[in-house]
Amino acid sequence: MVVGGAALARERHANLRFIMFGDEAKITPLLSRHRILRDVVSVRHTDQQVKSTDRPSQALRQGRQTSMRLAINAVADGEAGGVVSAGNTGALMAMSKFVLKPMKGIDRPALCGFLPTLRGESVMLDLGANVECDEDNLVQFAIMGAAFARTILGLPRPTVGLLNVGEEELKGNEAVKGAAAILNGATLPLRFHGFVEGDDIAKGTTDVVVTDGFSGNVALKTMEGTATLFSQFLRRAFSQSLMSKVGYMLARPAIMALRERIDPRHHNGGVFLGLNGISVKSHGGMDDVGFATAIGLAVDMVADDLIGRITADMAQFSDHDEARDRAVAQ
Amino acid sequence: MVVGGAALARERHANLRFIMFGDEAKITPLLSRHRILRDVVSVRHTDQQVKSTDRPSQALRQGRQTSMRLAINAVADGEAGGVVSAGNTGALMAMSKFVLKPMKGIDRPALCGFLPTLRGESVMLDLGANVECDEDNLVQFAIMGAAFARTILGLPRPTVGLLNVGEEELKGNEAVKGAAAILNGATLPLRFHGFVEGDDIAKGTTDVVVTDGFSGNVALKTMEGTATLFSQFLRRAFSQSLMSKVGYMLARPAIMALRERIDPRHHNGGVFLGLNGISVKSHGGMDDVGFATAIGLAVDMVADDLIGRITADMAQFSDHDEARDRAVAQ
Repeated sequence: MVVGGAALARERHANLRFIMFGDEAKITPLLSRHRILRDVVSVRHTDQQVKSTDRPSQALRQGRQTSMRLAINAVADGEAGGVVSAGNTGALMAMSKFVLKPMKGIDRPALCGFLPTLRGESVMLDLGANVECDEDNLVQFAIMGAAFARTILGLPRPTVGLLNVGEEELKGNEAVKGAAAILNGATLPLRFHGFVEGDDIAKGTTDVVVTDGFSGNVALKTMEGTATLFSQFLRRAFSQSLMSKVGYMLARPAIMALRERIDPRHHNGGVFLGLNGISVKSHGGMDDVGFATAIGLAVDMVADDLIGRITADMAQFSDHDEARDRAVAQ
Repeated sequence: MVVGGAALARERHANLRFIMFGDEAKITPLLSRHRILRDVVSVRHTDQQVKSTDRPSQALRQGRQTSMRLAINAVADGEAGGVVSAGNTGALMAMSKFVLKPMKGIDRPALCGFLPTLRGESVMLDLGANVECDEDNLVQFAIMGAAFARTILGLPRPTVGLLNVGEEELKGNEAVKGAAAILNGATLPLRFHGFVEGDDIAKGTTDVVVTDGFSGNVALKTMEGTATLFSQFLRRAFSQSLMSKVGYMLARPAIMALRERIDPRHHNGGVFLGLNGISVKSHGGMDDVGFATAIGLAVDMVADDLIGRITADMAQFSDHDEARDRAVAQ
């Protein structure tokens, strides 16, 4: 999947080069199958790897020679523009944070991803990095998510919504209320929409949906589960009678187009935003196509200097914040 | 919708009687259209009503003669077995809590409802009554939700899962970890499954899903939004070409059966669990069929003595709890 994904990604991005970390004896034969990868991959051998069952703390302490850690080190050392991994999410998050360090002004990096919506695609964060968040965390997520949407979705001034349990100003916990107050008063390259609810995610009401890692993870996985439920029900419906089977055959091209549209492989890639380096998680259970999407995401973030954009936005925000604090003090 | 729903519900439940609170001049002509409701409805006139825009606190203070308040009073006075309303959720919640009072041992009542799953139906709570919850709240939700599943779904020992961001014991916030520890050690008429994730809701991994009102509301509305997204995509797919339109015509009966299965009208009704009285919220935008479902829910809860069951389970739980505390003290 990694080698195949790299080959696909290389077809799309002519100057792309790879350093692959892992067991050379396993990687080299796979590479020989892809002519397009000749001369653009260097392999760094290591026989250590982070297991899917390793705890993040364990991986951090004992995993200094693992393929994951060495790949992240390559980003920190400037050898690589970004790291893409399909491995243990918690370990990738912990190691990326430890090695690449949070950006100035960002208290907590967040896990950010895309979702299919009625209007196209939206960006949501945090998808699970931070179980509990305060108002400042949420404001930083909004700034980072908007910079990500400008970079990857090409939207000059993306709309940002704060996920809440009701649109009324009075509802919600202290963190979302506080974040809304700050975002309403700030001058930033985004349009703050206010609160959104769970059904607004799939509607695509805003380009960016900001929430804490608990709700964000619940929402993401609930969407996945509901999509699976719907697909299963649909499959059962189509296989119910001869008529419905014939109907399925006729409607098949259209249904395939629908499947293509909501295909998770085209929305693959969770990005750790807020670090001094690009780190992308490819979801488990992906194939070449999915992994190539995650690589493409890393390429776009490097090419469009996402980190530079976030740095500039954070500076603008804190200048404004300090000016406001001075104004209040006077 | 209310009168039509009552007529449908009366067809299903032969001994059902209604007290309808509201504008007599509007209700009486509607009643005359339904022979089945003759002699089983008494109308209590009031020209005051809670508006959808009223704040709960406002409704509580100023709404003592509203149809909603009078209907809840009828439950407290023993005149009615339960109240069903399609009105302002926050007001219904606040008034029900104020008038009916929380049950002994229940710190916070919760909003509970059904969801369609791959396996049938599951129960989820809290769907939005309590934005922040501690471990004791979650344990009480588990006990109430299990009693509800026994009553309404007829499951002798329902499985209960705690919604979390990962199945590993280490993940999640303090409240879910604490609740898991208590539920693991308790003797209750339920099987505690442990943690579940967002995708487990639609899979139907457990009969009952317990979470705080913020995540629960997000999950519920995310499911609704995703189902709508899927339906819209499907509609577009079927109208794409002549072939797909013909395919749709042939598969139509099967697709209608699917639609029936996930029809929100059959899962209608949010129940406030944990009060000394039955109070059911019918979702907005329902028709006769949906409102009849909500009435049916109230009927079942009264007939099966849900409140008695919760009382017994809470007593068993606190006996056990006290025994454990004594054991620890010795």
